[in-house]
Amino acid sequence: MAITGKTLLTATIGDPVDHLQAPESMGAWFAEHEVDAVWLGFHVRPEGLADFIGGLRALENLPGFTVTMPHKHAIIPLLDEVSERVRRCGACNLIRREPGGRLVGDIADGIGFVAGLKDSGVTVAGRHLWLVGAGGAGTAIAWAVADEGPAAITIVDVDPARQDRLAGAVREAYPAISVATGRPDLKTVDIAVNATPSGLHPGDPLPYEPAELRPDAVAVDIIMKPPVTALLVKARGLGLKTVPGQKMLDGQLRIYAEYMGLAPRG
Amino acid sequence: MAITGKTLLTATIGDPVDHLQAPESMGAWFAEHEVDAVWLGFHVRPEGLADFIGGLRALENLPGFTVTMPHKHAIIPLLDEVSERVRRCGACNLIRREPGGRLVGDIADGIGFVAGLKDSGVTVAGRHLWLVGAGGAGTAIAWAVADEGPAAITIVDVDPARQDRLAGAVREAYPAISVATGRPDLKTVDIAVNATPSGLHPGDPLPYEPAELRPDAVAVDIIMKPPVTALLVKARGLGLKTVPGQKMLDGQLRIYAEYMGLAPRG
Repeated sequence: MAITGKTLLTATIGDPVDHLQAPESMGAWFAEHEVDAVWLGFHVRPEGLADFIGGLRALENLPGFTVTMPHKHAIIPLLDEVSERVRRCGACNLIRREPGGRLVGDIADGIGFVAGLKDSGVTVAGRHLWLVGAGGAGTAIAWAVADEGPAAITIVDVDPARQDRLAGAVREAYPAISVATGRPDLKTVDIAVNATPSGLHPGDPLPYEPAELRPDAVAVDIIMKPPVTALLVKARGLGLKTVPGQKMLDGQLRIYAEYMGLAPRG
Repeated sequence: MAITGKTLLTATIGDPVDHLQAPESMGAWFAEHEVDAVWLGFHVRPEGLADFIGGLRALENLPGFTVTMPHKHAIIPLLDEVSERVRRCGACNLIRREPGGRLVGDIADGIGFVAGLKDSGVTVAGRHLWLVGAGGAGTAIAWAVADEGPAAITIVDVDPARQDRLAGAVREAYPAISVATGRPDLKTVDIAVNATPSGLHPGDPLPYEPAELRPDAVAVDIIMKPPVTALLVKARGLGLKTVPGQKMLDGQLRIYAEYMGLAPRG
């Protein structure tokens, strides 16, 4: 669809923005759903973020935007309201602009992950999920997964302090979930999630050994490039169900549009 | 071309923006010239303009923008530098964003008009141009035409104060040009320009009577809708050469792109 004066504007703010996939993937989503909106990359450096966000409050035809590196933390104090999820994660990447310029923020990474699991037919409720990696993505996933009512979550990270801090916070907020740390008995794991960068580059070690999982377990990777990581190749070879990183992104597209009021009904 | 994170952003800032033609016409121009850039409408109300412009200084992938109603005057004090033309016209509509966020402004209406005349094979140098209308568009045209070295300019407006003010200023700045006011002997006119709104609506009176011009005179209208006004219909019927308002817009497209450093060489 050609851009006109009526076209609504949405964007990802980042530094850099050259590599962004959202302009193309959300552009295709808008076209598919016949939404007259466009997704842009806004290249803003850290020192310009506060002024830029102040200016966006005045942009009447911008229903919302997302932020990526390095702004996910710095954006928080510039907003009028953030969700409990943002406070827990200490990061925000999804912002709605309300009439009058009020800015409200959430974080979509974890809920996109859960939506991607659901789209793949994977249920979290009542299961044991092993989360490998407690960084930014892992933290967002832990909180979104906890909302789904799993029986147990085990969290491991190369940084024990980060691992224990996240596990402790989830345990306190969700007393009904059995929260542990470290390496569990892999035969008890239903869903094993790689939320580390291991697998981005050829020759990276596997984040875990899929052969140690039960044959009915699900192997999940959040890495999007390559689309099928060495971890998932091996898991598939063993006959395990797998969910690739692209599913997490797919789950986010509708979440972005819905949050900004741009998703068509039905 | 699909929008990616590498696509440069340009826009028109206005209130409203629904009716803008630039997103489509400049979008087509960029596509034709294989420039990876997009033209948007930025809907900003007067009370938000200063904050919004402050924010745009931080938008690294925005090489420039234009402004339209009601911001053409209010934008001036928000910029770092404006051309002599802007100071003369008291209006600015074309802004370049330089590295570091510096904003430099010019006004393209008049130079687009002159470019449109040139594209139509009409020379201003040495000729007598009659300008009917001394409002915003007429003022921009008067100053751009004066730069081309006409022998004479005659300016008429329904508001005699406005007419005399513009004529006096042009006379002072360009002593070599014979500047007069009111209605000239139409047989001495080489180029007769309608810069009033008369002709936008069916039944509007003609801004002047083309039958009174010489057969080798040129009738020009800046009105774009309808594409051929009643004035031009009558002038064509008399065998006069005519230049429609669309030519002024066409002349502006390359000027916009060049000013922002987006025009391909050659």
